[in-house]
Amino acid sequence: MSDRCGCAVEEALAEARRKYRNWGRWGPDDALGTLNYIDDGKRAAAAALARTGRVFSLAVELTRTGPGGGHQGSGPQSGGHQIGGGNPVHTMLDSGMEAAAGTQGYPHGFGAADDVVFMPLRAGTHWDGLGHVFDNALAWNGRHCADVVTAAGDRVTGAERQAAGIVSRGVLLDVGRVIGGGSLPDGHAITDDQLQATIGAQGPSARVGRGDIVLIRTGQLARCRAAGDWAGYASGPASGLSFGSLAWLHSTEIAAVAADTFAVEVRPPEFDAPCLLPLHQIAIPNIGLFLGEMFDLEALAADCAADGVYEFLLVAAGLPIAGGVGLPANPIAVK
Amino acid sequence: MSDRCGCAVEEALAEARRKYRNWGRWGPDDALGTLNYIDDGKRAAAAALARTGRVFSLAVELTRTGPGGGHQGSGPQSGGHQIGGGNPVHTMLDSGMEAAAGTQGYPHGFGAADDVVFMPLRAGTHWDGLGHVFDNALAWNGRHCADVVTAAGDRVTGAERQAAGIVSRGVLLDVGRVIGGGSLPDGHAITDDQLQATIGAQGPSARVGRGDIVLIRTGQLARCRAAGDWAGYASGPASGLSFGSLAWLHSTEIAAVAADTFAVEVRPPEFDAPCLLPLHQIAIPNIGLFLGEMFDLEALAADCAADGVYEFLLVAAGLPIAGGVGLPANPIAVK
Amino acid sequence: MSDRCGCAVEEALAEARRKYRNWGRWGPDDALGTLNYIDDGKRAAAAALARTGRVFSLAVELTRTGPGGGHQGSGPQSGGHQIGGGNPVHTMLDSGMEAAAGTQGYPHGFGAADDVVFMPLRAGTHWDGLGHVFDNALAWNGRHCADVVTAAGDRVTGAERQAAGIVSRGVLLDVGRVIGGGSLPDGHAITDDQLQATIGAQGPSARVGRGDIVLIRTGQLARCRAAGDWAGYASGPASGLSFGSLAWLHSTEIAAVAADTFAVEVRPPEFDAPCLLPLHQIAIPNIGLFLGEMFDLEALAADCAADGVYEFLLVAAGLPIAGGVGLPANPIAVK
Amino acid sequence: MSDRCGCAVEEALAEARRKYRNWGRWGPDDALGTLNYIDDGKRAAAAALARTGRVFSLAVELTRTGPGGGHQGSGPQSGGHQIGGGNPVHTMLDSGMEAAAGTQGYPHGFGAADDVVFMPLRAGTHWDGLGHVFDNALAWNGRHCADVVTAAGDRVTGAERQAAGIVSRGVLLDVGRVIGGGSLPDGHAITDDQLQATIGAQGPSARVGRGDIVLIRTGQLARCRAAGDWAGYASGPASGLSFGSLAWLHSTEIAAVAADTFAVEVRPPEFDAPCLLPLHQIAIPNIGLFLGEMFDLEALAADCAADGVYEFLLVAAGLPIAGGVGLPANPIAVK
Repeated sequence: MSDRCGCAVEEALAEARRKYRNWGRWGPDDALGTLNYIDDGKRAAAAALARTGRVFSLAVELTRTGPGGGHQGSGPQSGGHQIGGGNPVHTMLDSGMEAAAGTQGYPHGFGAADDVVFMPLRAGTHWDGLGHVFDNALAWNGRHCADVVTAAGDRVTGAERQAAGIVSRGVLLDVGRVIGGGSLPDGHAITDDQLQATIGAQGPSARVGRGDIVLIRTGQLARCRAAGDWAGYASGPASGLSFGSLAWLHSTEIAAVAADTFAVEVRPPEFDAPCLLPLHQIAIPNIGLFLGEMFDLEALAADCAADGVYEFLLVAAGLPIAGGVGLPANPIAVK
Repeated sequence: MSDRCGCAVEEALAEARRKYRNWGRWGPDDALGTLNYIDDGKRAAAAALARTGRVFSLAVELTRTGPGGGHQGSGPQSGGHQIGGGNPVHTMLDSGMEAAAGTQGYPHGFGAADDVVFMPLRAGTHWDGLGHVFDNALAWNGRHCADVVTAAGDRVTGAERQAAGIVSRGVLLDVGRVIGGGSLPDGHAITDDQLQATIGAQGPSARVGRGDIVLIRTGQLARCRAAGDWAGYASGPASGLSFGSLAWLHSTEIAAVAADTFAVEVRPPEFDAPCLLPLHQIAIPNIGLFLGEMFDLEALAADCAADGVYEFLLVAAGLPIAGGVGLPANPIAVK
Repeated sequence: MSDRCGCAVEEALAEARRKYRNWGRWGPDDALGTLNYIDDGKRAAAAALARTGRVFSLAVELTRTGPGGGHQGSGPQSGGHQIGGGNPVHTMLDSGMEAAAGTQGYPHGFGAADDVVFMPLRAGTHWDGLGHVFDNALAWNGRHCADVVTAAGDRVTGAERQAAGIVSRGVLLDVGRVIGGGSLPDGHAITDDQLQATIGAQGPSARVGRGDIVLIRTGQLARCRAAGDWAGYASGPASGLSFGSLAWLHSTEIAAVAADTFAVEVRPPEFDAPCLLPLHQIAIPNIGLFLGEMFDLEALAADCAADGVYEFLLVAAGLPIAGGVGLPANPIAVK
Repeated sequence: MSDRCGCAVEEALAEARRKYRNWGRWGPDDALGTLNYIDDGKRAAAAALARTGRVFSLAVELTRTGPGGGHQGSGPQSGGHQIGGGNPVHTMLDSGMEAAAGTQGYPHGFGAADDVVFMPLRAGTHWDGLGHVFDNALAWNGRHCADVVTAAGDRVTGAERQAAGIVSRGVLLDVGRVIGGGSLPDGHAITDDQLQATIGAQGPSARVGRGDIVLIRTGQLARCRAAGDWAGYASGPASGLSFGSLAWLHSTEIAAVAADTFAVEVRPPEFDAPCLLPLHQIAIPNIGLFLGEMFDLEALAADCAADGVYEFLLVAAGLPIAGGVGLPANPIAVK
């Protein structure tokens, strides 16, 4: 398409707003968005999926140099993404070196190490908060964004409001394996049909319904790790959800969707005109949907492929940094 | 006791080392300590305890000014604790104010907020890592502490090594309610007998066994919150586990123990001579036991008191900051 | 005075705005304020005052625990000041311990240490930037404050705009010695008359004129240091400039004024009604005056008292942190 | 040369240690190194060079995105340098947006902005501290490096020890203009002869002697800025001082040397075998020489070329971050 004026983008956004906007659905004071789809019954059923006790952490290591080692700037947290970015910097206030040297001054052989971290909240595996993206100055539920997120952080829908909220049935959709034969090429837009085909191929345990947390594996993270090259991970092309998949994301009434990529949605966007993150723009402020990024799905995907079971209990609560518009998380899947 | 030379401390430490040291128990390369007591069967049984789907976050909000509001320096993260301490500082790279002002420069009505945090890893609800405390220059499993924790962090037992490890059956022991009639006075040392009495009073669901994660409620956090006064929380006297309870902590083969206080163990210590954190000194480097601090147990305790069920699935994985000797966590209990 | 409605404050502010406002004086694009009073001739004359080559740093050490040692939270950067505050946290990425252990991996005996810092820009000796304080939503030169300082920092008058600007003749007014007999009592408001009396007592070298940088010594910093007690330094009462001294600050056409206190102006304010920093509110956005805080004037004051010369070259440029509304500085006086 | 074993490096380092080592020269407790060459007389003479009052800041702006604008990671502070590196992150605690919105809650129209910064101490224009580099585990003056720099920072020669020390006569050697016809090609090693030729071409005001601070302009910083491309600045080849120039650096008894590059010395090193920063390894721990990096010499160089005067008063004190092995500075030249 040739769309210098961006008319196609504008029309697509307008249509999506009209069709998928959930404002008011959970009352005027809502701070949970699609997490409202999860209730006690859903969580009880999810817990019942944890039959074997096998457990998987879906978080990447938070590290200054990245999993692949090497210089600062390598690793999945690197790159020139326009919004946020940058690696965590973890430093010690005191360490075993000083304890061994006997200079800490504690009595009776006591020694201690202590540490601090400086990090973007989106530096590793995380959920985007409801205050992370706005649509024409409106935040989730139709609030004016200046009334929601100020220098003091997100005062209405901050990370502390969802402290207990992200626990439900998880479903892994290994689109990389089913559609891509292992991994999807960068830039590939995942359509509704491909999601359905993946579910079909994976069988009944992969069925998706209300309140589920859907995990999309593209294979990109594994490919970068194997190559030891994360140069494009945060800023280059990546496979991800097509703008067209919003219909499915909305109608399934899922609670959240996460992927093993930096942005969940396909990059670059599918529109001809300049355009940043159009799926974010609809999903977060209009649907109230939680997007999870940089999830490491490799071990879980291998286990699911082995036993053919693609559902599990997922406990993926974020760190309740008051006012946070990012929720650093160590999501735990229990099968 | 009068013990100017500190002989009693030295003897108590020596005896505790002799009796409770677990070095080598899980092989020379171990990085899990007492988390080794948790296996698939234990986790499956724990998951089966999540029957109703009621869910509780046990994390305090991470905030610059503290839950009680007020100036920087208030809140549970305040105070003059000798090791670490200090509140998180969460700031915005961009906010809704700029999005509303139309100065962000994104096309098609896109707006965004983004944030960073600087925080001590022990600033909020957390687990102490195995590299947090040393005993006579030896870290967990008998390693020399200078070989374990350097300026690069904990290279052997860092937070990333337990990423999937802290998931098990949780048991709440509401000592504050059973023994203290609501809350224990600051400085009260909780003995084995009082733990047993609490279990007895709470009934069969409170029985403690191998691989369990025990949560001790003293009531101090609730008391500080109600008073809006956290002045002494991080540095003053607090009730907590008696040094004598190490026998119980060791013999029960629990995986971890946490409390609603800053240090889990009683402060000041029960010895006459100067002495820092003697229970830490045995528990962490010798037993390999995970200690959890600043857990908010109020909502969970109220629920347990209401239904008489004190056991649940506990998913309390920490953020996998590579090399971290502290594990910031948002522990989730599912009943 | 009894002034529950705050009428006296409002009237005083209104009168001060009418009399002292310098808006437009240096054109619509100005980012220098009263630093405009300094020109090449002024600087050349100032340099000529540096006759002996004796040199003085006027900066306090930036430290986590404060000059007095002790726990985090001690030191001049401590306390519960409502705006900003907090100590710097300086940590090492690598140190001599690792170099000595031979684990850094550099060839040929090379070893290195490296470090980072997290700090409020007002944590130590600093100048308040022109974007630090607003008056009824107006910043320096009459600009709307939302057009000046956003999440991106001060885009109009940020610290980088005065990178070469704070160099001039310095004059020490040791009010603490002349009026207070060593040190002024906390809460004492320094009047115009007392400034004039100090100049008179100190002699011709203390005369103040256009473009000068005036340094006010109250003695408070020395008193806190001697007592090892900084509890009230950042938040309690302090002597400082009276609101009435604004006439003098304005008419003398000085370029800047600094003191050895946390706020330069007297605290609490001299008004009966609640009121934050009224002198700041006029001086910064209306006069365009640079205020310097936490200057350590002890060694310089002793030297001036010894030789009777109270003027010198002062090079007090701040760190050009782009967009900074605080300018951390190590001001150097050369006599 | 072919030197797989690194024999040439080892021999060159050994010879340089033998010839240039200044240990003990200023007593066992020294924390100033070559700054000892500066005395009151030197500073008085330097001040006398400030005749016209023209003033130049030699600091680059400290910015997240770099002077060239663009994404995080651009700018002089970017790149993959092995030691340290990374851009400053400056964020607001409160801004004019909130003041304008009327949500700050201060009375009488008071509004405020406040900010914090996280930065590597070597992120912008800075001096390397004496504790930054070690030679075979020995720091400046022959101290064992583990006794000098620990997790607590440099306890012997930290930045606070030179707070008033870096003030002297500055001399600009515009090697880029004289030898390179504007700018030197990356990788060019500046020899003694070329330094002498530059002095000769620039005339008597460029003569170098004891206690001087020498500023070497290569032209690289200007070239990167003009091209808007900083990719190689921090990690790629750069012109700089030849290892052979150590004889000159030592025998002239200069107090410090700085350049407009990331490392002052030529990169890659002139040796065939792997080798990090050989000139640093001799200059810092052996000579006790202060190296200044990322100095912006453009405006000063233009002025010197215009009036033919290459000497000036240089006030280049660093921020006294206690224990710092880097000294962020805003060096001020007054002509």
